[in-house]
Amino acid sequence: MTPERLYLYDTTLRDGQQTQGVQFSAREKVEIARMLDGLGVDYIEGGWPGANPTDSEFFADAPATRAVMTAFGMTKRAGRSAANDEVLAGVLDARTPAVCLVGKTHVLHVTEALGIGLDENLANIGESVAHLVASGREALFDAEHLFDGWKADPGHALACLRAALGAGARWIVLCDTNGGTLPAEVARIVGEVIAAGIPGDRLGIHCHDDTGNALACSLAAIDAGVRQVQGTLNGLGERCGNADLVSLIPTLLLKPPYATRFSTGIDRDRLRDLSRLSHRLDDILNRVSRRGAPYVGASAFAHKAGLHASAILKNPATYEHVDPALVGNARVIPMSNQAGQSNLRARLADAGIEVAAGDPALGRILDLVKRREDQGYSYDGAQASFELLARRELGSLPRFFETDRYRVTVERRHNARGERISVSEAVVAVRLGDQRVLSVSESQDAEGGDRGPVNALWRALVKDLGPYQAVIDQMHLADFRVRITQGGTDAVTRVIIDSADRQERTWSTVGVSANIVDASFDALIDAITWKLIRDGVAPA
Amino acid sequence: MTPERLYLYDTTLRDGQQTQGVQFSAREKVEIARMLDGLGVDYIEGGWPGANPTDSEFFADAPATRAVMTAFGMTKRAGRSAANDEVLAGVLDARTPAVCLVGKTHVLHVTEALGIGLDENLANIGESVAHLVASGREALFDAEHLFDGWKADPGHALACLRAALGAGARWIVLCDTNGGTLPAEVARIVGEVIAAGIPGDRLGIHCHDDTGNALACSLAAIDAGVRQVQGTLNGLGERCGNADLVSLIPTLLLKPPYATRFSTGIDRDRLRDLSRLSHRLDDILNRVSRRGAPYVGASAFAHKAGLHASAILKNPATYEHVDPALVGNARVIPMSNQAGQSNLRARLADAGIEVAAGDPALGRILDLVKRREDQGYSYDGAQASFELLARRELGSLPRFFETDRYRVTVERRHNARGERISVSEAVVAVRLGDQRVLSVSESQDAEGGDRGPVNALWRALVKDLGPYQAVIDQMHLADFRVRITQGGTDAVTRVIIDSADRQERTWSTVGVSANIVDASFDALIDAITWKLIRDGVAPA
Repeated sequence: MTPERLYLYDTTLRDGQQTQGVQFSAREKVEIARMLDGLGVDYIEGGWPGANPTDSEFFADAPATRAVMTAFGMTKRAGRSAANDEVLAGVLDARTPAVCLVGKTHVLHVTEALGIGLDENLANIGESVAHLVASGREALFDAEHLFDGWKADPGHALACLRAALGAGARWIVLCDTNGGTLPAEVARIVGEVIAAGIPGDRLGIHCHDDTGNALACSLAAIDAGVRQVQGTLNGLGERCGNADLVSLIPTLLLKPPYATRFSTGIDRDRLRDLSRLSHRLDDILNRVSRRGAPYVGASAFAHKAGLHASAILKNPATYEHVDPALVGNARVIPMSNQAGQSNLRARLADAGIEVAAGDPALGRILDLVKRREDQGYSYDGAQASFELLARRELGSLPRFFETDRYRVTVERRHNARGERISVSEAVVAVRLGDQRVLSVSESQDAEGGDRGPVNALWRALVKDLGPYQAVIDQMHLADFRVRITQGGTDAVTRVIIDSADRQERTWSTVGVSANIVDASFDALIDAITWKLIRDGVAPA
Repeated sequence: MTPERLYLYDTTLRDGQQTQGVQFSAREKVEIARMLDGLGVDYIEGGWPGANPTDSEFFADAPATRAVMTAFGMTKRAGRSAANDEVLAGVLDARTPAVCLVGKTHVLHVTEALGIGLDENLANIGESVAHLVASGREALFDAEHLFDGWKADPGHALACLRAALGAGARWIVLCDTNGGTLPAEVARIVGEVIAAGIPGDRLGIHCHDDTGNALACSLAAIDAGVRQVQGTLNGLGERCGNADLVSLIPTLLLKPPYATRFSTGIDRDRLRDLSRLSHRLDDILNRVSRRGAPYVGASAFAHKAGLHASAILKNPATYEHVDPALVGNARVIPMSNQAGQSNLRARLADAGIEVAAGDPALGRILDLVKRREDQGYSYDGAQASFELLARRELGSLPRFFETDRYRVTVERRHNARGERISVSEAVVAVRLGDQRVLSVSESQDAEGGDRGPVNALWRALVKDLGPYQAVIDQMHLADFRVRITQGGTDAVTRVIIDSADRQERTWSTVGVSANIVDASFDALIDAITWKLIRDGVAPA
C-alpha cells in the first residue's frame, strides 16, 4: 500500500506568538523558521504582516525556505471589495507564496461579533479567497470555530466551507478555536464534513489544548480523513496552546497505524534533532523545558521505579514505548551510572581528553555531574564548565590564579543635576602565584551608562591578570542568560555565560547560587580558565 | 436517564511519587491526602507500605478520609504462598480498607523479567487477590502492561484478568504502563476485554502521558465501558506522568456526554477549588505552575489576540469553552503589541478602572505601553505593573512613598573558619510624607544562607514602611524571573517578580534596566504599590 501524503503546517510564529509572555523578535523568528525548515514541515506560518511591527519586519526579510512560507490574515470586511481592504492588502504585500485567511463559520460570531448578515459572511469568504487565487497565491481558509459552529448551525458552517472551496482554496482548515471539543466529537464532525462533500485531502485540522486533548483531537481528525495538521513547537499558542508538533511528529512517524499509512515531509532521521530543537526554542524564549514533555523531556525516559530500572537493564523494550535515541533523547536510570560511561568518554574525547575505559574517575565524574545537576547546574548548555569539572576530577586542571575575594556595590541615587543614576563598582582580589593583585572597576558602556554588577565584576577581573593579560584581552562576553531553577529544595539562580574570542571560538560556562552575582562570578571564572587552557597557556 | 457511577482513583501519592525530582515527606503526603479527600475522589492510593520509610511512616499515621485509603504493592512472588510473602505482608500491615496489587499480564514480562512459567503467573495473581479478600480487604488488581500484553498474547492477558476477577477482585485496572498506546487502540482493546466477559463496571484504566494522550486514552476507555479512572494531580508520575485528574475532572463534570451520563463523588461546587488546589500542590513541591495547564493554568483563559479580546467583551462564550469561574480560574486580557483599545478597556475594567470608550487617555496609554515594550518591558506577564502605568497616565496613582536612593553590596570572602561565604547587604532611603527612613538589611534564608542582592533589597525595603507596615507584612515574593532582552539597540535585563499575599492574591510586576539590580528594584516597588492600592490603603 502506498502511503498517503500528510501535510504538516506549523504556526509557532503566528499562533505560538499568542502565548502569554511570548514576544518574538524578528531575529528570533528567522532562527525558528530555519529550525522548522530544517526539520521538514510543509508550511511555515510566519505571522500577520501589517498587524504589528515585528511581523512586518520578519516578512520584509523572510528567510528562503524549502517549506511554503505563509502569511496569515483575515477575510475582507463587509462593505468593501477584497481589493480595497487595506488589512488584506497588507497581508498580500508580504508576497508569500501562500496566504491563510481566517473567517467566521459560526452563526453567533457572524451575527454577534461581526454584526453582519450570513450572506455577507459567505461573500466575504468567497471573494477574499478568490482574490488570493487571482493574485497567484496558494489560498488557505481557516474556518474559525468550525466545530462549535457546526453544532450551532451546520448549514451555514458547511456553506462557508463550500464558499472557500468553490473560490479555489487549496486547504480548508477546521479550527477548534476555543479548544473545548473532545476527540470523539472532532471525529464525528470531520466525518460529517467529508460526507457533505468537502474532500479530506483538502481539509486541515487546527486544535487547541484547553481540555488537554489537542493531540488526540488532531489524531482523531486524521483518522476521520483530514490530510493537513496544524500545530506549534512545544505546544505554544493562545491560552493553553496548540497541538504540540514536537509530540505529534514522532507519533506520526514511529507508531502504527500512522507510520505506515502516511508519508510526511519529515525524514525519519531528522527526528534525532527533535529534542535539541525543542530545548533550543525554550532557550530562545528563556523558558524552563518541561521535564515531562512526551518524547523530548529530560524525564521522558527516566526510570525511577526500582522494578522498572532493573528490567530495563535486561531489555529496554520492557518499559520504553520507543527507543529514546530515535528522537534524540536518552535513557536516564537514576542510581545507575553503568550506561553513562561510554557516553561520557565520547564527550571527554570531544574536548581532547582521552580516558581509558574502566577508569574509576569516570564513575566519580558521573556522580559529581549528578550531584551538581541536583543542585541546579546544567551542563548540557555549558560544555566548557563540564570540561573543567572533568579536568578537576582527572587531576588535569591547571591552577592559573586564585580569587581571594570580591565585593560588588550597586548604588542608585540622584546626581548633581537631580537625575536618577545608578553606579556599579567591583573590587576583586586575585592571587597570581605569589603575587596579589587588587583591581577595581566601574561598569560603563560606550555612552557612560551603567551595565550592572556582573559587567563591573568582569571588568575588574580582567583588568590585571598579569602574564595572562594578552590572551584574556582577546575574549569578550557574548551573552548572559539567567534562569531561576530548582536546586535541592530551594530555588536557585543558574547563570550561563557565552564567551567568544578573536579566533571565532564560542564557549559557554555555568554558575549556580542562590545569589545571582555569586553564580555569575563562578561562570566568569570558568570562562577565563577555559580560554587559558584552550590557548595552551602555562600557569604562572 | 439515571447517570451511571464513575469512580475516580488518585495515585498522586504513589505513581506521582515516581516523578523525577519529586520526593514527598510523610507530612506532605498527609496534606495532599486531605486535599484529595476534600475534592471528593473515591480512592486515595497512599503509597507502597514497606517499600520505603516515608510510605511506611505515612500509613502508620494515615489521616482519616471519606475516600477509601488504598495501599499499593505487588502480587506474591513465585515459590512461596501469599501468606508467607513478606513484601505482601508489609502491604497488608498498613491495615487499609483497600489494597491494590500490580501483577504481570504480558508474556514477555512473565518469561523474561520474572523468568517464571505462565501458569505460575496466573497462580501468583489468583492467590494474592484471594489472600486480600480473605483478609477482609477490597481488592484491586493493576494489570501491568495490559495493552502491550494483549497485543502480544491476548490469551494469557485475558487469563490473568480472569484469575483476578475469579479470586474476588473488586476492580481490574487496565494499565498502559509504558504509555505508548494511542486512544483508538485503547478503545479497541477495552472493547475486546469487555466482550471477552470482564464487566465494564469492574474495570479501571491507568494511563501515562508518553505520547501526550493520557487524557484522551482515559476518555476512550470510559467511552468503551470502564467505570474507574486513575490519575494524579497535575499529571505527576513516572516519566511523562499519569493522566492529569486536574484536567480530567472538569471535562467529566462539565462537558457532554460525560456531565449527564455519569455521576462521580465530586460535587460540582468543589470544582471551584481546583485552581487553588493545583497551585497549592506546586507550592508544596516548589515547582512553577504550568501557565498553559488546561482549566487551571494562569494563561488558560488569557485572550491575547486583539480580535478575541474585543469579541469577549461582547459575549464571553465567543472565545471561552467554559466559564473560568467554574474551575476557580479567571479571565485575563493581557497587554501586548497586538492589542487594541478594546483589549485595553477590558483590562482596565478588570482592575476596577472604568474608562469611557474614546477617552484620549486610552491612546496615550497604548503609546506608552508600546514605547516601554520597545525598551524591553513586557506587560503580558506583568498585569500589576501595567495597571500602575495606566493609573499614572490617568492621574489616579497614589504617591505612597518615595525612594531617594539605595545601595546594595555583595561580597564573597573567606570566614574565620576558612569557608567561602557570600554576604549581601542593602541600604534603602525612603521618604514617607515628610519623614525620612533609612533601613539596612542582609539577605538571609532560614539556614543563614545568602539569597543574594535582590532578597537583601526587598528585606531592607519592607523593614520599615511606617503606616503601611501591617499591610506589607501580609505579602511575600513568590517567584523571580530574569530575561536578557533587546531594549532599543542594547541588551537589557527584564525582571519579572511574582508576589502573593495572605488573601491568596498573586500579582506580577516588571522592571527593565541594563543593571539587573536596578530592574529588580523597580519591580519590587511596583509590587508593593499594587498591594497598597488593592488593599485600599490611603497615602500617608
